[in-house]
Amino acid sequence: VSDGDVGGFDGGDRDFSPAEHAELALLLEVAGTPKPGNVDREHDLGDLRFEHFLAGSVGSRRGLQLAEEDAPVGEAFERAIAGMRQQCGGNTQFGCLLLLVPLVTAVSTVEGDLTAEAVTEVVESTTVADAANFYRAFEHVDVAVGDPPADAGELDVRRGAGAIPTLEEREMTLLDVMELSAERDGNAREWTGGFRRTFDAAESILADDGPVLDRAARAFLDLLAEEPDTLVATQHGTEVAAEVSRLADEARGDPTEVAKLSDALVAEGVNPGTTADITAAALFVALERGVPV
Amino acid sequence: VSDGDVGGFDGGDRDFSPAEHAELALLLEVAGTPKPGNVDREHDLGDLRFEHFLAGSVGSRRGLQLAEEDAPVGEAFERAIAGMRQQCGGNTQFGCLLLLVPLVTAVSTVEGDLTAEAVTEVVESTTVADAANFYRAFEHVDVAVGDPPADAGELDVRRGAGAIPTLEEREMTLLDVMELSAERDGNAREWTGGFRRTFDAAESILADDGPVLDRAARAFLDLLAEEPDTLVATQHGTEVAAEVSRLADEARGDPTEVAKLSDALVAEGVNPGTTADITAAALFVALERGVPV
Repeated sequence: VSDGDVGGFDGGDRDFSPAEHAELALLLEVAGTPKPGNVDREHDLGDLRFEHFLAGSVGSRRGLQLAEEDAPVGEAFERAIAGMRQQCGGNTQFGCLLLLVPLVTAVSTVEGDLTAEAVTEVVESTTVADAANFYRAFEHVDVAVGDPPADAGELDVRRGAGAIPTLEEREMTLLDVMELSAERDGNAREWTGGFRRTFDAAESILADDGPVLDRAARAFLDLLAEEPDTLVATQHGTEVAAEVSRLADEARGDPTEVAKLSDALVAEGVNPGTTADITAAALFVALERGVPV
Repeated sequence: VSDGDVGGFDGGDRDFSPAEHAELALLLEVAGTPKPGNVDREHDLGDLRFEHFLAGSVGSRRGLQLAEEDAPVGEAFERAIAGMRQQCGGNTQFGCLLLLVPLVTAVSTVEGDLTAEAVTEVVESTTVADAANFYRAFEHVDVAVGDPPADAGELDVRRGAGAIPTLEEREMTLLDVMELSAERDGNAREWTGGFRRTFDAAESILADDGPVLDRAARAFLDLLAEEPDTLVATQHGTEVAAEVSRLADEARGDPTEVAKLSDALVAEGVNPGTTADITAAALFVALERGVPV
């Protein structure tokens, strides 16, 4: 039933809004396979299954829509997380949404193209209220986080809304909060560093060829090979994270080796989730820039 | 990262709107595997790939949202098809949406529970304008249809909007149009027969256990075993359609046999697409009735 010619649709000129592209990015990210150690089209991880990511994507759209309508970043994010969490699998896309919300906001509110400068303008405009809503979002989910720095006890995200008085007292914006954890969290580092890896990976996806799900899987593996995954570092230590990146570098380009790595990571419970988050953000930028689907 | 206890979420009490449930039904339908002869989590069909169904699901949401807001059925359907078609794969979910739009409308506009009576009330309220928008929707896609009855030349769906003067002259509603093809099209038969198979399959999905994607695959196979697929009949003849149902009946319950059937149907280019459409509609009803995800 293929009819590529009807309407002359060539795949790149989608009439999709930023919120639609962001939801599609979530779906393409989870479907892309193989993404060693993550849920993908061919892998579930125990009770965390593919359908939880499908429902999480659908539920996230409310918050993404708010971002498109120029709601404050924190409000849109908290709403996206509440919607994402309407399924039994748990935290499926917290990190993805932390990157996607400011990117959607940038498309909708900043004049000109979606660039590092545009999204930097968005994150630099965040407020204490955005920070408060970010902490509120933690009350919807259990997110794997490392031990905070000794001086951040009052701002441990596990305090949820309990941290808000401290945020207000110290006048911390959401960007300030991200700066607190930029050293140990790859998503926070995107916020503080102009979304460098997101935009670089988006350009790789655009320059690649073949079906978009294959491009997504290759982008994931390249990102993993290039820098240790910070979720793996949080859960298993920096040495394991470095070793996973070394193995990814060796395996990339060889489907048999990638499949072996995938089996090994699943068996060890090693989940390079931050790399998947950045892959989703990169897919969003690539979709906005016209990658065909 | 599973946290099934956070917020006490048990999977059935989703805070999802009818349009969100309908989009999720489209996604669960395409992900459910094995669904012999159809695109699913493990199968593409040549150039018609999984990602086309993901994009089709996201794009459909605009029309489903209109249905939720009580727009006329034909307008919501035409909008859903236009959105679905923003990808290169071609017609991915035309039949699914023909069933989902009146079901969403029924949830939103008819008092009480979603029942056969409620959706029958919706389809019986359709107008000539709804019929006209149904014909307009064919201009967005190539849909596999059989030769129309000899007396329906002026109303051949392949005429697209060109059929509208005839519709108006004969004062035909969208339900009248469905009655024209109920004999040879299983989706039209749902419209004219109180969505009997949709509601029966929804109850089977609810009574089943295990992950929802496994339930979806079993529901598909049961539907295929019970009645010949009308898309297969249109494309390959009624004898082939009957044989496919006989094979599905023999294979169900035996994963090895189901996998063999799947390979055979893909090799022969046999696509039981109408059965997939009814599976999507049944998933929607099951989601509305609280099936856990």
